[in-house]
Amino acid sequence: MEIAILLFDGITALDAVGPYEVLAMMPEAHVRFVAPERGAKRTARNGALALIADHTLSEVPRPDIILVPGGPGEAEMRTDPAVLGWLRSAHQTSRWTTSVCTGALTLAAAGFLDGVEATTHWSSMDDLAALGAKPIAERVVVRDKVITAAGVSAGIDMALRLAQLEAGDDVAMAIQLILEYDPQPPFDAGSPAKAPAHVMELVQDRRRRRAGT
Amino acid sequence: MEIAILLFDGITALDAVGPYEVLAMMPEAHVRFVAPERGAKRTARNGALALIADHTLSEVPRPDIILVPGGPGEAEMRTDPAVLGWLRSAHQTSRWTTSVCTGALTLAAAGFLDGVEATTHWSSMDDLAALGAKPIAERVVVRDKVITAAGVSAGIDMALRLAQLEAGDDVAMAIQLILEYDPQPPFDAGSPAKAPAHVMELVQDRRRRRAGT
Repeated sequence: MEIAILLFDGITALDAVGPYEVLAMMPEAHVRFVAPERGAKRTARNGALALIADHTLSEVPRPDIILVPGGPGEAEMRTDPAVLGWLRSAHQTSRWTTSVCTGALTLAAAGFLDGVEATTHWSSMDDLAALGAKPIAERVVVRDKVITAAGVSAGIDMALRLAQLEAGDDVAMAIQLILEYDPQPPFDAGSPAKAPAHVMELVQDRRRRRAGT
Repeated sequence: MEIAILLFDGITALDAVGPYEVLAMMPEAHVRFVAPERGAKRTARNGALALIADHTLSEVPRPDIILVPGGPGEAEMRTDPAVLGWLRSAHQTSRWTTSVCTGALTLAAAGFLDGVEATTHWSSMDDLAALGAKPIAERVVVRDKVITAAGVSAGIDMALRLAQLEAGDDVAMAIQLILEYDPQPPFDAGSPAKAPAHVMELVQDRRRRRAGT
């Protein structure tokens, strides 16, 4: 069971690392971190963290599971011919093709989501629609062999669902127990529907300032 | 606000990356990944992922927040004079000294938890007691300036609590919303109290096989 996780500069690290911890514990799982070129990829938050891609895309041509994380750097992946070419070829033989957060936009750009229900970070639903998918506000969306997850932390839930599909309920629950994934956030503010309006406004303000608009 | 996150070979990546995503979004936060020696540190799951420590411990002598992750490699941190010396010195001036998962054992070995209530991964409670702490089965334990979190994924909850203490409710909720941390695991099996008995037995079997006993 070969699992390829795409890395790139400007990635949101948790998009990749959450699912990694889950999927790497499946029986016979071999995770490969891949990129067009080997080496350190800096994360989005001021580049304080670098994750290393040990393998080039061409070294992992036919993974059983493809995982595309998101992050600000995803905008470049979406138009990178090397990434799109690899995805289109690997998708022909993959068992599962998956994304976390804005990674769904890259899957859409590769043509995997034309007219297909999928999800992404709540702030990128319009972008996902513009790329031809049918965005739905669910935590994890499974359609045939394509699985998309909502923003960032949703990758953990997606990977547990995938472990369930691939290895069964008991293995998925065992992984959840080992990772002690018994979430108890101090607030219930993790989605636009649940966050207080003034917090939503804070986040929108921050996004507008960053976009310079 | 300088935040030092310790890296080492055999780390559980999510212990570090979950809190990183949360804490890096606090206002004026500067995260530094530190280790006795700079360079790539391989994670516990077959070493498939490497995180880079950009800074030596001596380059970050007085962080405002210290975070010690866990993982199989923690056993060596716990007896490393360079790590213990840095921790003891940095703890004198830190605002918060924190751990995720078995990182609490290193805090205990440094002498910060003598007779103090703290938590760790559910499977390491006895080890924590043997090092002088008073283990309690809670998700996040705040005692004076020391905060310990339960296993692996509990680091996300811990970091949100810390963001709340340091930057207030609104900032913590905004971070939760940006990370879309609205957990919906497919099962409710994330703690020994919640997992079915046969799943607990699966996990214990796996641990015994790995320990060779």
